[in-house]
Amino acid sequence: MNFLEERIMKDGIVKEGNVLKVDSFLNHQMDVALIDEIGAEFARRFAGEKITKVLTIEASGIAIAYAAARAFGVPMVFAKKAKSINIDGDMYSAEVESFTHKNKNMVIVSKKFLSAEDSVLIVDDFLANGCALQGLISITEASGATVAGIGIAIEKGFQYGGRSIRNLGYHLESLAIVESMDPETKTIVFRAQ
Amino acid sequence: MNFLEERIMKDGIVKEGNVLKVDSFLNHQMDVALIDEIGAEFARRFAGEKITKVLTIEASGIAIAYAAARAFGVPMVFAKKAKSINIDGDMYSAEVESFTHKNKNMVIVSKKFLSAEDSVLIVDDFLANGCALQGLISITEASGATVAGIGIAIEKGFQYGGRSIRNLGYHLESLAIVESMDPETKTIVFRAQ
Repeated sequence: MNFLEERIMKDGIVKEGNVLKVDSFLNHQMDVALIDEIGAEFARRFAGEKITKVLTIEASGIAIAYAAARAFGVPMVFAKKAKSINIDGDMYSAEVESFTHKNKNMVIVSKKFLSAEDSVLIVDDFLANGCALQGLISITEASGATVAGIGIAIEKGFQYGGRSIRNLGYHLESLAIVESMDPETKTIVFRAQ
Repeated sequence: MNFLEERIMKDGIVKEGNVLKVDSFLNHQMDVALIDEIGAEFARRFAGEKITKVLTIEASGIAIAYAAARAFGVPMVFAKKAKSINIDGDMYSAEVESFTHKNKNMVIVSKKFLSAEDSVLIVDDFLANGCALQGLISITEASGATVAGIGIAIEKGFQYGGRSIRNLGYHLESLAIVESMDPETKTIVFRAQ
């Protein structure tokens, strides 16, 4: 097991409905040293790629994207949900459905911050059905930028998001892929990588 | 001028309606080195305080809080807007009105992550009317924790948030306090500190 799988086994909580709670270290309270390690691991796995920007979606992807951006020495951009009066009209946008919140959001990125010269690492904390990721890929490609890679902390391997993204030919690296979880026995099985 | 005031003068854009856009480096695209410097500056200004947690609110406070948490070597917690099915029922909550989005949100922090033993540095990117900050203070004090300090990147000194927080006796440090802005002449006047 790698450092993230070990931490999930130690502090993750399996709940009914295929919910894996990692809110004590990853997406509500954040363990800075762990997230720095995730950023460094993305830098290792995508060392062969030219990365000019790291892109994520608010809110829980921001710290991981920030750690990755530091590791690559590039700016980080986060896609915003809904429209803010502080954002110019000139936006790339995509509609994204949330598995967690059971709703749809428009996500937007200012055209100022992605261009055809960019080679983008897309980062997020979770990958389940892949809707958020598809939105970020769509925005990146609309800008003319290249998707150089996709880095995920935890992938739910029993949902179809990861498979469909890999089938499309993207270089997707998930640090922990949960193959199955059982809320009764509290067991978590990771895919061997 | 300090490093943040200089960056605001260089890349900030003054718009009608007292809007200061800093989305190229602070709250949409993020300059990692600048935000690390903000974290380090908070560590310097609150060096005399015992800090056990850094608390912020999603989304644009997360990277700054993360940088501050690294500088102090403590966990970061971000308050979430609205209710997620992935969050337990046991929550501290406060209602917060957004100046930017002209709406109200319930913000919540799990009771697991704040307790009477905690001494909290509250951090955010902007302080205007202070609603978000008041919510975070209310949540911190409901938990029995101490508000050890409040660190803000940019304060709009012509709105009443900062004054009311200081009047209440909190140790508030804003790295840049905008005294006035003029969208026609593109000028920004900072408060001398």
